[in-house]
Amino acid sequence: MTDESMLRDAVALASRLIDAESVTPAGPAVFDALEAMLHPLGFAVERFHAGEAPDGPVENLLAVRGTGSPHFAFAGHLDVVPPGEGWSSDPFAADIRGGLLYGRGAVDMKGAIAAFVAAVARQAAGNGTLSLIITGDEEGPAIHGTRALIDRLRGRSLIPDLCLVGEPTSVDRLGDTIKIGRRGSVNIWIDVPGRQGHVAYPHLADNPVPKLVRALAAIDALPLDQGTEWFQPSNIEITDLAVGNPAHNVIPAAASARISIRFNDLHRGEDLARLIERTVHAHAPEATVTPRISGEAFLTEPGPFSDLVSDAIQAEAGTCPTLSTGGGTSDARFLSQLCPVVEFGLVNATMHKLDEAVAVADLDRLSRIYADILARAFRR
Amino acid sequence: MTDESMLRDAVALASRLIDAESVTPAGPAVFDALEAMLHPLGFAVERFHAGEAPDGPVENLLAVRGTGSPHFAFAGHLDVVPPGEGWSSDPFAADIRGGLLYGRGAVDMKGAIAAFVAAVARQAAGNGTLSLIITGDEEGPAIHGTRALIDRLRGRSLIPDLCLVGEPTSVDRLGDTIKIGRRGSVNIWIDVPGRQGHVAYPHLADNPVPKLVRALAAIDALPLDQGTEWFQPSNIEITDLAVGNPAHNVIPAAASARISIRFNDLHRGEDLARLIERTVHAHAPEATVTPRISGEAFLTEPGPFSDLVSDAIQAEAGTCPTLSTGGGTSDARFLSQLCPVVEFGLVNATMHKLDEAVAVADLDRLSRIYADILARAFRR
Repeated sequence: MTDESMLRDAVALASRLIDAESVTPAGPAVFDALEAMLHPLGFAVERFHAGEAPDGPVENLLAVRGTGSPHFAFAGHLDVVPPGEGWSSDPFAADIRGGLLYGRGAVDMKGAIAAFVAAVARQAAGNGTLSLIITGDEEGPAIHGTRALIDRLRGRSLIPDLCLVGEPTSVDRLGDTIKIGRRGSVNIWIDVPGRQGHVAYPHLADNPVPKLVRALAAIDALPLDQGTEWFQPSNIEITDLAVGNPAHNVIPAAASARISIRFNDLHRGEDLARLIERTVHAHAPEATVTPRISGEAFLTEPGPFSDLVSDAIQAEAGTCPTLSTGGGTSDARFLSQLCPVVEFGLVNATMHKLDEAVAVADLDRLSRIYADILARAFRR
Repeated sequence: MTDESMLRDAVALASRLIDAESVTPAGPAVFDALEAMLHPLGFAVERFHAGEAPDGPVENLLAVRGTGSPHFAFAGHLDVVPPGEGWSSDPFAADIRGGLLYGRGAVDMKGAIAAFVAAVARQAAGNGTLSLIITGDEEGPAIHGTRALIDRLRGRSLIPDLCLVGEPTSVDRLGDTIKIGRRGSVNIWIDVPGRQGHVAYPHLADNPVPKLVRALAAIDALPLDQGTEWFQPSNIEITDLAVGNPAHNVIPAAASARISIRFNDLHRGEDLARLIERTVHAHAPEATVTPRISGEAFLTEPGPFSDLVSDAIQAEAGTCPTLSTGGGTSDARFLSQLCPVVEFGLVNATMHKLDEAVAVADLDRLSRIYADILARAFRR
């Protein structure tokens, strides 16, 4: 990887990254490949491990070029979800067929990271700071990945002014959708204790199931919101019920449920957890309610940054992107604590699926759009 | 077993039956032992197998002495529940220690069957018919046991006028409680289908859990009854819930529950099954509701038969028994289709437990009470 022109070839770069197998948590090979691309481009590359078992250690990479403001950051992940069985070609050997580049991570999101590099290779080092914030654990627990990178950035007072996350946000056509926010997510475990007994002697037992059922019916009826200008309504889903009692004639000793709430920026995870706890305790005072907040909602209000990204997309692809806050969570939920964040990347149709593939033309176009975004960001 | 006097010794007889291991379904050894006791007493003994796998075959025994009326029947079972681990002595080797006879089935109900035999041995053959209706499958599915015996009795027009079932009904003291009825029992499985999806895209999924939860809350609130003069209130218990979804972010494809209803003689199983089905369908129209009726409620109205049993108990034990309809089901639910049925037997404190044991004095006393019941029944 000494040929400067190859560093502008997003397809060649993506192929190198795909060839380095990196199911979560990503091992060193794929980071070696990325580091080899970034050194010739003048980046100071720092790699470090964070966390311990069971959620770590996780390898992360921080690459910085230049100093001062503006500070623009690309962010993403080199880990991929497991390939599964049944691929038409080796998921960890990039293969181009019929104008498509096949391989696990082609779309989510080694393709986008390759496009970051190709964009940067076209951008002469100038004023300001350019950084790449890359983790090896986004598809997994995500505890020691981007969060550790953020701690490191804060420790070095290297706070970006703008951050673009390369998640595959496009739906049907490259550039048709960018994300300016994400809903928050909280999972809550509810455990209702009871007293086991024989069905024929109900007065000697205390059935926990009716209490749980009433609590869940009340939770399901809770009004959260009607949505906002930028967010769909928050939703509560009961995702699991469990008693595990094989005996027809036995009143069970315990009953449990799990719920998942996806919430917009009208709520905070902690408040929702307390609301659920109050509702449960109204029906089952002795219940245990255990919330785990995966991420808060965030919104990068439509404005200069989203306009900048939209303008670059429109200039290159002729498409005016929809500003979306839909879908699941991403590491943008953490990065939004630092600065305005927009997510934009490839068409997501094949992500996490068999025969994940990206159009070669899209990869090239994405690197040009990213280059234009950089040019606009540093021109401001 | 040729010594006539031994046939009057309920403790010796019970020991022989205990020594023949007979976890449900009871094998031939324990029936051989009982048959050997009944032949010298002038009974015609008929043994037959009923049913096929998985609930059969089951061995049953019908012993008849005499003809014409009155026809008095003793009924019971020779099978026992598994012993479990941790006995102080071999559960299938009768052992007398400290005035107690230890062994699986001592109380439930080889002891009572031994007392049947000892009572009969004291009773000279006279007018009328005396029968023993004995199954090897009461603690199991109970499909090919007493029901097959009833079919055989009907086929031979051998319908008893009175039937005493030797289940261990006594609570603290021999004779303190007899059963004149039992509640019915129906188990109902509820399966609610849905459409699986991602929690972040609820509009693309159809969560079955809220429907199930609402249906169950409505079922739990159903008024059944306040009890009757002889029965406690019917009760509905939700005994199991299941979704089995390990993924936090997935809306499950199906949810299910199982309920158990114990009902008094104000209801019939079929009507309750329909009530549950209507209630479920009001909240989950596409749900499947599968009832299985284990038995209908029955009541032998307090009257001549319960008076006869009570008088015999009072004469021998000085106790005036409580007439109960509490507890679980027994084969009396089937026998009640033939004639008035009363259940009376040993103290049930150790039944189904480790170190099941009966007081030697109680066994002897029970055989004298049974003999007195026979005397009174044939004197009528």
